[in-house]
Formats: sequence, C-alpha cells, structure tokens
Amino acid sequence: MAVRKVDDKNQLGFAFDGEEVSQEHTEETKVAPKPKAKKKPKKKGGATAESMATKQRDISISEFFAKNRHLLGFDNPRKALLTTVKEAVDNALDACEEAHILPDITVIIKQLTDSKYKITIKDNGPGIVKKQVPNIFARLLYGSKFHSLKMSRGQQGIGISAAGMYGLITTGEPVEVISRTSPNKPAYHCHVQIDTSKNTPDIIMDAECDFDLPTGTQVVITLEGKYLKGKQSVDEYLTQTAMANPHATIIYYSPDGMCHEYKRQNSELPFIPVEIKPHPYGVELGMLFKMARDSKAKKIPQFLHDDFSRVSTNLAKQITKNANLSLQLKPSKATLQEIELLHKSINETKIMAPSTNCIGPIGEDRLEEGLRRVVDAEFYATCTRRPSVYRGNPFLIEAALAYGFKDPKAKKKDDDDKQPLMQLKRIANRVPLLYQQSGGAIHKAVIETNWRNYGISQSRGSLPSGPMILMVHIASVWVPFTSESKEAIAHYPEIIKEIKLAVQECGRKLGQHVRRQKRIKQELSKRSYIQTYLPHIGEALRDILSLDENEVTEVVDKLRDVLERSRKF
Amino acid sequence: MAVRKVDDKNQLGFAFDGEEVSQEHTEETKVAPKPKAKKKPKKKGGATAESMATKQRDISISEFFAKNRHLLGFDNPRKALLTTVKEAVDNALDACEEAHILPDITVIIKQLTDSKYKITIKDNGPGIVKKQVPNIFARLLYGSKFHSLKMSRGQQGIGISAAGMYGLITTGEPVEVISRTSPNKPAYHCHVQIDTSKNTPDIIMDAECDFDLPTGTQVVITLEGKYLKGKQSVDEYLTQTAMANPHATIIYYSPDGMCHEYKRQNSELPFIPVEIKPHPYGVELGMLFKMARDSKAKKIPQFLHDDFSRVSTNLAKQITKNANLSLQLKPSKATLQEIELLHKSINETKIMAPSTNCIGPIGEDRLEEGLRRVVDAEFYATCTRRPSVYRGNPFLIEAALAYGFKDPKAKKKDDDDKQPLMQLKRIANRVPLLYQQSGGAIHKAVIETNWRNYGISQSRGSLPSGPMILMVHIASVWVPFTSESKEAIAHYPEIIKEIKLAVQECGRKLGQHVRRQKRIKQELSKRSYIQTYLPHIGEALRDILSLDENEVTEVVDKLRDVLERSRKF
Repeated sequence: MAVRKVDDKNQLGFAFDGEEVSQEHTEETKVAPKPKAKKKPKKKGGATAESMATKQRDISISEFFAKNRHLLGFDNPRKALLTTVKEAVDNALDACEEAHILPDITVIIKQLTDSKYKITIKDNGPGIVKKQVPNIFARLLYGSKFHSLKMSRGQQGIGISAAGMYGLITTGEPVEVISRTSPNKPAYHCHVQIDTSKNTPDIIMDAECDFDLPTGTQVVITLEGKYLKGKQSVDEYLTQTAMANPHATIIYYSPDGMCHEYKRQNSELPFIPVEIKPHPYGVELGMLFKMARDSKAKKIPQFLHDDFSRVSTNLAKQITKNANLSLQLKPSKATLQEIELLHKSINETKIMAPSTNCIGPIGEDRLEEGLRRVVDAEFYATCTRRPSVYRGNPFLIEAALAYGFKDPKAKKKDDDDKQPLMQLKRIANRVPLLYQQSGGAIHKAVIETNWRNYGISQSRGSLPSGPMILMVHIASVWVPFTSESKEAIAHYPEIIKEIKLAVQECGRKLGQHVRRQKRIKQELSKRSYIQTYLPHIGEALRDILSLDENEVTEVVDKLRDVLERSRKF
Repeated sequence: MAVRKVDDKNQLGFAFDGEEVSQEHTEETKVAPKPKAKKKPKKKGGATAESMATKQRDISISEFFAKNRHLLGFDNPRKALLTTVKEAVDNALDACEEAHILPDITVIIKQLTDSKYKITIKDNGPGIVKKQVPNIFARLLYGSKFHSLKMSRGQQGIGISAAGMYGLITTGEPVEVISRTSPNKPAYHCHVQIDTSKNTPDIIMDAECDFDLPTGTQVVITLEGKYLKGKQSVDEYLTQTAMANPHATIIYYSPDGMCHEYKRQNSELPFIPVEIKPHPYGVELGMLFKMARDSKAKKIPQFLHDDFSRVSTNLAKQITKNANLSLQLKPSKATLQEIELLHKSINETKIMAPSTNCIGPIGEDRLEEGLRRVVDAEFYATCTRRPSVYRGNPFLIEAALAYGFKDPKAKKKDDDDKQPLMQLKRIANRVPLLYQQSGGAIHKAVIETNWRNYGISQSRGSLPSGPMILMVHIASVWVPFTSESKEAIAHYPEIIKEIKLAVQECGRKLGQHVRRQKRIKQELSKRSYIQTYLPHIGEALRDILSLDENEVTEVVDKLRDVLERSRKF
C-alpha cells in the first residue's frame, strides 16, 4: 500500500496548500480495466459516481441559514421582529460595557405596511471602525466574541447579520448603519447587504454624515414582521432586559406610537468580565493534539503554561514528566501517541479549578430591585450561588422569587385549584430568553424541585402553581444553548444541579414565609370564632348566673383576655 | 451626501471582488478634529472601537460546530455513537437509491478501549469519485443535496463530516475511506481529516487497494463513544431503519459480538424521487429579487418559466402583464420596485399546486409489513395521505398503528390505569428519529388527537395509553427539522394538520376494532354466566317439575340454544 501525501483541487477551484495535482479525473479513466472484475448490472436511469460528483459542491453558511432560518429564530414574522430587536440590543449592551460606557439605548419600531416594519436601534457605545461595519452587519460567522472565553451576550457572530439577511430576503432592503468612533470625527454611514451565495458583504452606499452622539452606532433593518403585545413580545423582552440590566437606560418607541422609558436605576457599571484561557480538564485528546501542532511554544511545558489557565511552570513540568515525555519535546513535533500520554497525565494530575473572577452576578440586591420593578409582591427571596464549572467553563447561577400578588389577568375566583402556574423568567448573561421554556435546563430544574416541601401546590412534572414569579439567571463565559437562536440552555448536569440549589434556597425562605402566613391565617380565623361566639356565651352566663349587663361585659372581657393570651401568636 | 461603491479588504486578507482601497485605517486617523465636538469622558480601561476591531475576525463553520457540537447530535458519547452510525447509513442508503441499486449495508461497531469505538459502514452503492472523497468526508457544508428540492435522507452536507470531525477531536484519528466506482478500476483508499480552522480537508494517506465489491464505499470513524442497548440505541435505530426500508439488507455486528441480520423483504426499489423547482407561492420578495438578478433569462416571463415549477409560458406572460411590467424587461436589470410588483402579481394569480410526483410514500402494505416485523399484534391499521404543501414544499404523511400485544417488559398487572403509554415511532424520509420526541410536530399532533373517541384512555396533554405502536412517516423534498441534528419536525401548521388526519384515520379503524372487542368481551362474560347458571336452573326445574335426567338435559339444551340465539354476536 503506497502511502503518500497528496494535494487536491476541487471543482470550485478551492486550492489546498501545496502544489496542484492536475487532471485527476483523466488519470482515473486511464486505469487499465481488470479482466477478472465482476460486472454488476445497473438499472437504467440510475446515477453513477461520476454523475453524482458533478452536483457536489460547497454550501455557503448564509445559504444554509437562509434555508434553515428557523434555527436562528426567524420561524415566523412575529418571532423575526423580536429576534432582530434582541440581536441589536444585545450587541449594543455588549459594546457599551466593553468600552465601560453606561448604555443609553433607543429602540424604534415603525410599521410601514401591513407586514413590513422598520426597526432602528441606536446606542452610545464606542462605535465600529469603518472597515469592520460591512463584515459585522452582513457576514455570518464574523465577530470578536467567538474565539474568547468571556462572559458576553453575543458569542456566535451570527445574530445581527442573520437579522439583516432575513430583512433582505423578505423585503429586498439592505441594512443601514451609521457609526461614529470619536467626537473628533464625522460619522460613517453605509448601506450593506449580504451576498448569500458567498457569505460576503456588498456595500450599496457609503458616505459621511452627522450623528447626534459623540460616539455610537445606529442600525436600521427593514423586514417582514408582525407586532403583537403579550408574552414573547418585543415589549416583554425589553421589560425583562431592563430588569436584568439596571445600569442601562432603554427608550422604546413601539409601533402603536407609545414611548416606553426605562431609566437606569443606578449608575454603577456592572461587573466587567475578564477573558480567560481554557482549563486543561476540559480539553479532548484530538483538540489537545491540534493545539500542540498549532503551538509556537518551543517546549511542551511552555505550551501547557501558555495555552491553558491554572497551569504554573512547575505544574507544567510535572505533567510532562508524569507523561514520560522529554521536557525538550517541541509541541508541534509531538506524535498522536505522545499527546495521548500527555492527555492522560493532565487528567491524572490535580489542577486548581478555573478562576471564577471572569464572571459576574447581577447580585441579590439588584435582582430584588429588578423584581420589585415588575411586581408588587408580599414576599421576595434571592440567591446568588458561588461560581461552578461545566466542561471546563466557569458559570454561576442566581435565582430570585416574588410571591403573593394580585394577578390582574387572573379570574376573580379564590379557588385554590385554579391558581395560575408560576411565571418563570429565564435569563442568560443578562439576556432574557422568551422561547422554548420547557426545552431547557432551567425549566427542568424547576419542575424537578419539590415545591410541596415549601407549602406550594405542584402537579407532577409541571411548574408549581400560585402567585409567583421566579427569575433564574445563568452567567458563563460560554452559555451552552440548545440552538443557534439561543432560546434554551442545554441539559448539562452540573448546570441543572446549581440551578436546583439556587431555587431550593429561595424555596426554603418561601416555605418559612408560607408557613408563617398559614399560621397567621389560622390565628385570625380562631380570633374571629372568639369574636363571634363570646357574646353568646355572655348571654348564656347571664341567664344561668343571673348577672347584670356590667357583670356580663366584665366576664366576657376577662374570658376574651384569657382565651387570647392562651393562643400562641 | 457622497454616494460611492467601495471595496474592502478585511484583516484576514479576504479580498472582495474589485480593486483594493489601501490604508483605510490611516485615512481615518487623518480626519481633522472638529473643534465643537463634545468630549465624552471614558472610564479607564474600556475598549475603543479600534481595539475592538483588532479582535474581529471570521469564524470557520467547523470551529463553530466543533464548539457547538450538541447542535449536530454529539452532546454525549452515547448519542455521538448513534449519530455517526445514522449519518453513514443515511448516506449509504441515499447513494444506493440514487444509483438504483438495492442496498446491502454492513455496520460494524468494535470497542477498542473503555470509551473508544471504531465504526465501519460499508455499502454497495455507486462509490465516490476520488477527488470528491476528501470534501465529502472532511468538509462541513459540502454536498449535492442541499441545492436541490428532492426527497432524500441527507440534505445539509454536514452529517458525515461532522462525525469525522467529532472522531478527530476526541481521538485524534482521521476518517478512513475506501471507495470503488467501477468494477474495472481498483478501489481508492485514503485517510482524511478536517482542518477545523479553515474547514478544508487534509489528506493524510492516499493509495489504491482491493475491495470485495464491484462498486461501493466503506467509511471507518474512530471516536469516543458509549454503547448501551435500549431506547435511543444504535440497535433500536437499525431495527427501525429496517422497518422503514424493507428493500434494504442491513447486517449489523454489535460491540458485544452479536451479528444482527435484517434481510430485505422485497427486491423492488422504492419510489425514485424526482427533483423539482421551487413553487412561486413559496418565494419571498427579497429572494425573488436575488433570483431575478442572478437569472440569465433575457425576459421576465422566461425567468418565471425557467426558475419555477407550475409556470407555463402563457401564465408567465399573464403574471408579468398583471404586474404592469414590460414583457421585454430583463430580469437582471429589474429594480426592487419592479420585482415588488411582480411578487404581488404572483401571489394574486392562481397557480397550480406543486407537482407531487417528487415524493413517494412507503405504502400502506409495506408499513403494515414493517410493523409486523416488530410486533405481533391483534390489530393493524395504516393510512397514506395524498401529498400536500407547506411553504411551497410538497410533503406527504403516512401513519401505521399496531394494537393489542403483550409487552414483555410490562409488569404482570391487569390494572388498566397502569397501562404503558403508546410507543410513538417517528420517521422522516425513511430515517427513524430517536431524540426529542416531545419537541416536534408529530408528537404535538398525536397528543392533540382525542384518543378517547376511539375507546383509548388518554390523560390531557399526553400520549394515549395502551398496548399500541404508532408509526408516523413524513416524506418531503425538504423536511423542516428543528435543529441541525435532525431530531424533530418543526411546527408548520400544514404538516400538523396532515399528521392529525392520517392519525385520525388509523384511530377510527382502531375505534371500530376496540368497540368490537369490548362487545366480544361482554358477550364472552354473558356466555360464561349462561354456562355457569344453566345447570342450576336445570336442577331447579327438575325439582319443581319433577323431570328425569334426560328431560333436564333436553330443557337445558333448548334453553341454552334460545339464550344464545337471542344474543347478537
């Protein structure tokens, strides 16, 4: 068996590294026929390897997502409107925070025709340099956040370009961007649209213009949409965003001509996330092999120290020695077998858990503030867990609960059986999640919690019922979503466990409150019995003992006093 | 406002069509400062537009899916094993059918270490030409099926390369492929692996070799996996695949050393799917605009006729006239406004529904055969619906039901309340779906069907209970999955409606059977009463009427006769 490294050139003209092998196909047909080969009769009309080869070609990522747009949250016009606002607002908040600017964000949705909407989102962020604008708004899988392990809202480099692509597909209109990066420079204004067959931006118009902020970005997308209020609406999303981002001011002009203003509640910047390197425990053999080959380090220990977190120079040497590898071995020259030894040694060595200063909670006080903005309840409980780790990625869970309020929409019945289910609000890296509630880890953890322990009624396998809002926040350097549309958290056992612990802590506090409330209610009903029956007892005593009115009053008062003191309260 | 078309070059050196604009960055910094601009104080340490721009770059689709591998069905080692077998078998079946070859497929799973498995899948398909092998097995988004509207198992050009990539990441091993395209040629043998940072294949080894079939392909992937039997196992998947593909022979060597053979049940090739063009009703404005600009047709009517199905030359002219457009207008020169008129005219014109000869059912008889292979039931019902259309794509629903069998795993209780839930088998283009049952359209349609109408017990919002298997098959030129891992069908209302109609038809037949069974059961219990009490009546009559034994027997026989005849049976 001859072993040689070959190079290839596919039919689309994509050249691989190295020299070309020409006339591949001609060579093949020249091979001498083997006389002993069995002939296989083929049915007429069937394709052959050659006829099939002519159809095989590249699929651009934008064609792929244009056809599978429901994967990105563009299933239907209503959701498309929400997804577009969400992606633009997420980017605006990320940009402001990265530049340490308190976000001022304006959202304007204008209805143009029955099904056509124009969405404008403006922020006071640092702006985007001219040459990056087309890529950021009209190219899928382009961005700064994917390659770093850092807590941020965006992480895929898909969202805003996908929104622009959806607008282009449904209305033919390009994305309009104005961005200014310095008060000393004019703003840059352009119209860009994605070329879906190549996944590259086309610049339709390009100019300088005025902008009323010293720095910032404004993006306008025209798309086929549908505006409805209620659950899973833009209004709901922005309300929840304001709740999870008390440091941001959001001004929202809805299509019905209303202006909603969410003023910032405090002018402290939130925790500024730090970028970290991957933890060695999370890395798989093949990935480690690739990292070693790509490494510019001269020696294995240096490679381990440079490319991973929590590996000191000494620890790196120890790992290498335990793997029986030379300390002088060059990572890029190591064989798969050598890397396998290294991989085994890493997993047998005790390494500190990943640093957790890279993720920041919203904080218990602010969570409660957030809930108070939304609902006036009789009881609040919050819990911020300590950071934990899944697949080498640090994450942190927070929960906040509000209990006991009048639901304006609820029917006027005091029937306990017909209580509404708990309202569950899910938030990931400060972004509210509105879709696929029952598909993710948060829902699973909440329904698997035994709420009856806390005096709350709950049917098997469903959310508990009662006048309750539960908010769960996951913060992580890499939130594992179940789809590109970032609607639900994947079922990692470590994450589910932490959610349960946070929810249980809120639940225990709630249980104390609920039990106390029950006791008070019982006391009140006992007291009302006393109030109801004492006068009758008084009358009976008067008849039996022939007392006068004053004596009756005195005896009844004494009796009441004794009875009330005998109760524990 | 100056309007000019600019060209751009991003930091990764990706050149756009056209000449370069050099020193973009330098130009920017030369702009004279505006004295009146307000200075915005920035907090120390925050990023600027410039510092952020240095981090913005392309994300390769393979890096994206390597990090988000759960989107492709590689969430955990057990599922990874199944997904890999599934992708390879799906491709093998597709290739055989496209070449009109009756499929003979061999699957071998060998356990190498605790967590390392070697998977081999061999088919007798047409083979793959040498220069396409690396792209097909080590490049994501590459294939022949994405760009055509045709019923096939694969459609994305991701599956098998993703399996190879997962193997590479977890074990460092490349994909091993042997393929032979003609009995007159030797087979081609190579080891390929994906370069995830570029999404291109690297060829590690390349040679000729022997192969024991005249044409065919064999692929070997080594990966970190976990083999377990039961629900969602490879065994289950292959059993269901055999059920949905009675024309295929599948031989399966499982890791426990067993050989399972599913021989073909009939040697007729299934329906050979035909490729169709998109239907004009499904196209959106922006998409139509793009198609027009890309069209080589000289006139609008010709463009409509060439690029869409069901548009005759006359109809194309009528659509163009109704849009008030010139019949001479060149599609590639049309403005967005003109195309908007055309789009409106298309949707106001009556156009025949898409042709449906492009999709083929499994067929009622074969569905029943398939079920009989799996379970020995007392009753079977099947229904194949006529084709229908969603978003311009033809599709077709089939359902098959088996009722009344002993579940070997069920507990030995005749307690009706504890009956197991119905077993639901979901199949899309002849591929069994094993994950995310409750997340898709099929599950939704089945739980929304009122099974109590058919005498079957069912709790609200859940599957009915009873000894039942229901199989639902959707065949379409483009199956809308809810994720890249192709686990569940998206909730298109047209699809849900058709599933309900098919399920209801099976349900009605089942209802008749169940009612008849109930009657029989009642009759049997009545008969047993007669059997039990008649002798006593005989004895009573003997005593009352002083009959002898013969007379008693006679009277009792007559009575039995009369009683039995009086019952409807």
